[in-house]
Amino acid sequence: MEMLGPRVWSSVRQGLNRGLSRNVGGWASGEGRKVDIAGIYPAVTTPFTATAEVDYGKLEENLHKLGNIPFRGFLVQGSNGEFPFLASNERLEVVSCARQAMPKDKLLLAGSGCESTQATVEMTVSMAQVGADAALVVTPSYYRGRMSSAALIHHYTKVADHSPIPVVLYSVPANTGLDLPVDAVVTLSQHPNIVGIKDSGGDVTRIGLMVHKTRRQDFQVLAGSAGFLLASYAVGAVGGVCALANVLGAQVCQLERLCLTGQWEDAQKLQLRLIEPNTAVTRRFGIPGLKKTMEWFGYYGGPCRAPLQELSPAEEEALRLAFTNNGWL
Amino acid sequence: MEMLGPRVWSSVRQGLNRGLSRNVGGWASGEGRKVDIAGIYPAVTTPFTATAEVDYGKLEENLHKLGNIPFRGFLVQGSNGEFPFLASNERLEVVSCARQAMPKDKLLLAGSGCESTQATVEMTVSMAQVGADAALVVTPSYYRGRMSSAALIHHYTKVADHSPIPVVLYSVPANTGLDLPVDAVVTLSQHPNIVGIKDSGGDVTRIGLMVHKTRRQDFQVLAGSAGFLLASYAVGAVGGVCALANVLGAQVCQLERLCLTGQWEDAQKLQLRLIEPNTAVTRRFGIPGLKKTMEWFGYYGGPCRAPLQELSPAEEEALRLAFTNNGWL
Amino acid sequence: MEMLGPRVWSSVRQGLNRGLSRNVGGWASGEGRKVDIAGIYPAVTTPFTATAEVDYGKLEENLHKLGNIPFRGFLVQGSNGEFPFLASNERLEVVSCARQAMPKDKLLLAGSGCESTQATVEMTVSMAQVGADAALVVTPSYYRGRMSSAALIHHYTKVADHSPIPVVLYSVPANTGLDLPVDAVVTLSQHPNIVGIKDSGGDVTRIGLMVHKTRRQDFQVLAGSAGFLLASYAVGAVGGVCALANVLGAQVCQLERLCLTGQWEDAQKLQLRLIEPNTAVTRRFGIPGLKKTMEWFGYYGGPCRAPLQELSPAEEEALRLAFTNNGWL
Amino acid sequence: MEMLGPRVWSSVRQGLNRGLSRNVGGWASGEGRKVDIAGIYPAVTTPFTATAEVDYGKLEENLHKLGNIPFRGFLVQGSNGEFPFLASNERLEVVSCARQAMPKDKLLLAGSGCESTQATVEMTVSMAQVGADAALVVTPSYYRGRMSSAALIHHYTKVADHSPIPVVLYSVPANTGLDLPVDAVVTLSQHPNIVGIKDSGGDVTRIGLMVHKTRRQDFQVLAGSAGFLLASYAVGAVGGVCALANVLGAQVCQLERLCLTGQWEDAQKLQLRLIEPNTAVTRRFGIPGLKKTMEWFGYYGGPCRAPLQELSPAEEEALRLAFTNNGWL
Repeated sequence: MEMLGPRVWSSVRQGLNRGLSRNVGGWASGEGRKVDIAGIYPAVTTPFTATAEVDYGKLEENLHKLGNIPFRGFLVQGSNGEFPFLASNERLEVVSCARQAMPKDKLLLAGSGCESTQATVEMTVSMAQVGADAALVVTPSYYRGRMSSAALIHHYTKVADHSPIPVVLYSVPANTGLDLPVDAVVTLSQHPNIVGIKDSGGDVTRIGLMVHKTRRQDFQVLAGSAGFLLASYAVGAVGGVCALANVLGAQVCQLERLCLTGQWEDAQKLQLRLIEPNTAVTRRFGIPGLKKTMEWFGYYGGPCRAPLQELSPAEEEALRLAFTNNGWL
Repeated sequence: MEMLGPRVWSSVRQGLNRGLSRNVGGWASGEGRKVDIAGIYPAVTTPFTATAEVDYGKLEENLHKLGNIPFRGFLVQGSNGEFPFLASNERLEVVSCARQAMPKDKLLLAGSGCESTQATVEMTVSMAQVGADAALVVTPSYYRGRMSSAALIHHYTKVADHSPIPVVLYSVPANTGLDLPVDAVVTLSQHPNIVGIKDSGGDVTRIGLMVHKTRRQDFQVLAGSAGFLLASYAVGAVGGVCALANVLGAQVCQLERLCLTGQWEDAQKLQLRLIEPNTAVTRRFGIPGLKKTMEWFGYYGGPCRAPLQELSPAEEEALRLAFTNNGWL
Repeated sequence: MEMLGPRVWSSVRQGLNRGLSRNVGGWASGEGRKVDIAGIYPAVTTPFTATAEVDYGKLEENLHKLGNIPFRGFLVQGSNGEFPFLASNERLEVVSCARQAMPKDKLLLAGSGCESTQATVEMTVSMAQVGADAALVVTPSYYRGRMSSAALIHHYTKVADHSPIPVVLYSVPANTGLDLPVDAVVTLSQHPNIVGIKDSGGDVTRIGLMVHKTRRQDFQVLAGSAGFLLASYAVGAVGGVCALANVLGAQVCQLERLCLTGQWEDAQKLQLRLIEPNTAVTRRFGIPGLKKTMEWFGYYGGPCRAPLQELSPAEEEALRLAFTNNGWL
Repeated sequence: MEMLGPRVWSSVRQGLNRGLSRNVGGWASGEGRKVDIAGIYPAVTTPFTATAEVDYGKLEENLHKLGNIPFRGFLVQGSNGEFPFLASNERLEVVSCARQAMPKDKLLLAGSGCESTQATVEMTVSMAQVGADAALVVTPSYYRGRMSSAALIHHYTKVADHSPIPVVLYSVPANTGLDLPVDAVVTLSQHPNIVGIKDSGGDVTRIGLMVHKTRRQDFQVLAGSAGFLLASYAVGAVGGVCALANVLGAQVCQLERLCLTGQWEDAQKLQLRLIEPNTAVTRRFGIPGLKKTMEWFGYYGGPCRAPLQELSPAEEEALRLAFTNNGWL
């Protein structure tokens, strides 16, 4: 088992301990330990009815089905959750609904990011009150030209200072046009209420660098997509938050298991078969592609809110090919 | 006067008619004429108190001072209005306050864009109810990878269909990472309730192309910044919505006048002196730079909402130089 | 005539003086005046035979036909001259051939840029020896990550120090991925052997800023494309080097004349009809599009060197539409 | 040993066979097997004298020192070899010199890319004649707007058809602004004389996808930088061509060995210590940084050709920190 470093070991141990009682805000207790977020999370979609209302019943159904897969927890209102399209009350109701529908022993990450610091603080506090275990906070980005490291450090520090639950940083340049700078990540990793980062940029050199430069902190790095999950584990990441886990959740968890137990040959084989499907439900066809695929795999997909459009027939066929060509359909 | 084309003429005539009664929704009346939006508009900032509350009193004061300048109207909640940091009720209150504070004969453009189509429709309707004359609708951008021409056409068509006031398209790639494609602009120009575009990208070839391809429509192009205002007039734009007009409003209006009356030599001299100050209060130092400059020119600037940060002393000095070097301070 | 500024006037005067004797290196003479490069230049293509040899006979034929148009001169081996595909001896032979074929009173600009400073110096000297009147020097770009202002200033200073002919800076970010920074342009404008810049980026704010900040130098700005020629004149540029002038040369010169004589209304009409054709033979379909179009207009186009490929039939049709839709075919 | 896949095994076997006789063009023999390029290669710099002449003596010295490290071979005239600054005769002389100076059993990869297809063919043939074992061919990029998959497939096919030695594709977007599209790579992998790709972009998802989609071809993927070497091995790459191997060559080869023998824990530790030094001698400080570092490690660095500039003292200090902070100096 010599291929497992300290971080990896700790998450294997964690794996044996999936029944841990949720210890919300435990980081602040006397023991001085942050919550361990290692593991796999699907980036849950928000189901809508034909008239574009949030369909909480379908959300419950999806979560029940996903509940049988050995995830560490669930992320609601990541980029795949269409959070920019939800009103504040809907954002809280989705968190509340997820908390009720999902197994008690799993972590509920909730995307609480807004453009202003104050709104993000308020949303984070409210999401904690309705059951979120940790808050995933996307970089504000509309004024990206002024989002220096100093501005972002200030933003995240304020949010973490006021949040009753641990904060996970979230860098997703495809949506925000902004990478959270590594130097800012390193500074923020020292905050007692910031426990990690979801990095969706896919630059594994950067992921390795963040692991390396935060190695003396209680700080964990999660891959933001299944396309580079194996590579991220190889450089010290401890899990992933993945759109693909909505449809191939068992396989993503199997990939985690192969990495954690050092079965790199099989891990590589599996990883390679997941790249095309992953790209198809993320960068290439986005949430409409993901929701369409969910229907093929027995989940409720349904429409997106406008302005997101349905796939064209040609796009749908290309989407399907990405799965059939790799033996998943 | 041979240098004035039909579009330019119409706006000179318009200039003689600054007292026109606001004819909200007039486009839908039997006459089939859209509102004329030609002219200069400051992109008004939103004043905040030291505790980051909207300071409506200071907004009124600023508007009163700006009211003496021969603007066509005012834009509230453009990018310089920090609209992504305002709650829904604040957004409406700012419109309402501006409506009360500004001269009756000026147009009130209100930025009503949200990420979802439905929210944008609702915000647009509400802003009309509290006094906006036209709605400026920014491109949704968080899912820019899926914001095809088709998706954007669908979005703007829905908004314009439901809006009781005319809609102005708004393309601002520095903030959104997205250019509203020219083919989408051309299609949308045919909608009876879409009257123009504010283009802040600064690509004058694109501005000329939009003018050219919409020449048979009742559709007007406004420059989104004072840095390329003269060039935009030269290719057929009919006005501008400018951050710089908050501080050098009379000068921006003078530039308009020089362009409309064919005094191109003086126009060029003036334009060249405005480029550096304009860049300083937009791309280079953003809203913090604009608000700081407002204080130098007798307006209320005040703080921005976080995560926007104050300028450093070095930045403030560079900002001042951009004005002093060009004879404005 | 009040719309003409000092720069514009000087070029109108220049226009009356098209018969000026070429005064190679005259900048270094006692009079202390740099050569005046104001005017329009086609960015001449390099004709190839079916077997991809340089076809000097066709080059002569093209230049003879172009010689009847009131250009200020010709540019060979700009980006449209496929210079990166030419061997050193071919580069010199093309200059020599052009010098013989073109009218004696026109300026021959020759693109002499190479990646290394030393090679650029040598090519510039050699091109001067075979008849170039001025050297157009593109920014080196392969190591763009290290091409700071300091590095570029050093490069151009060395070239200008050693060149027996005046040097024109050349910024073309679509090909180089690099904008020559304005601060570097301003510094370089003070060099006695640097007379101007061809800017192909199309950012008219930047063009205006360069005009403004070099206003106390003998330094001239040329638009690098016909798409923003009018706008460039409006902010103080004094000419253009244009791919489109290979096929609509008379029209581009007519646009110059309209700008110089203050007929801005007609200038605008003409400019707007040139944008789509210009984009088609530059950014959209590149040199293969330009060469195909040349055949429609009675010039020799011929093949490009590989790896540039011929247009597909669909591309060719779209290319043609860009001309027919604007009344040019 | 279950973590080794077929590709990895083959390269371990290859490792036992480092003494293989060079079989130039062996791919064309009856056996139908392409050359195996698995392993580590330093991207050798080109030494210059104080007067910017190629210093062949120093090149030999550097290669002799590097010859003791268990590299698979050497790359001359990759991006770190300043090939765009070398004349044709220098390019060949550098290859010839390297062939003489390096051990006979190592592979000599030579960068033979030029902008035109014909020049690339000629350079490739000439380099083969003076001793190159394989040609590394960078994507042409000046006309990147027209470098479609079809154009690039045509280019590489022509080169490979005419080359007497195997061809390795080379994608380096930081220098070229262009990614060789995956679909083009897949098509080209079927050519009998194209044996692999050096990918310097650092997108491990893309690297995995290329491995996966060429898995039925005799085609190998090499990481183009040491920053993502472990991650590349993890998804099926078989080696790397690395600037960093000029200074930490033994360590890069140790990382290879750890990956090939499944010691992933130690591999991770080593990889993480190499990221900062690697970034410092590549993206951050470029060749001037690499050559400066070579001097610290007992090699000849020397100056770069202009326009590349020496590091400033502040840059040099930051460069040194990247090595001292990770225990390498």
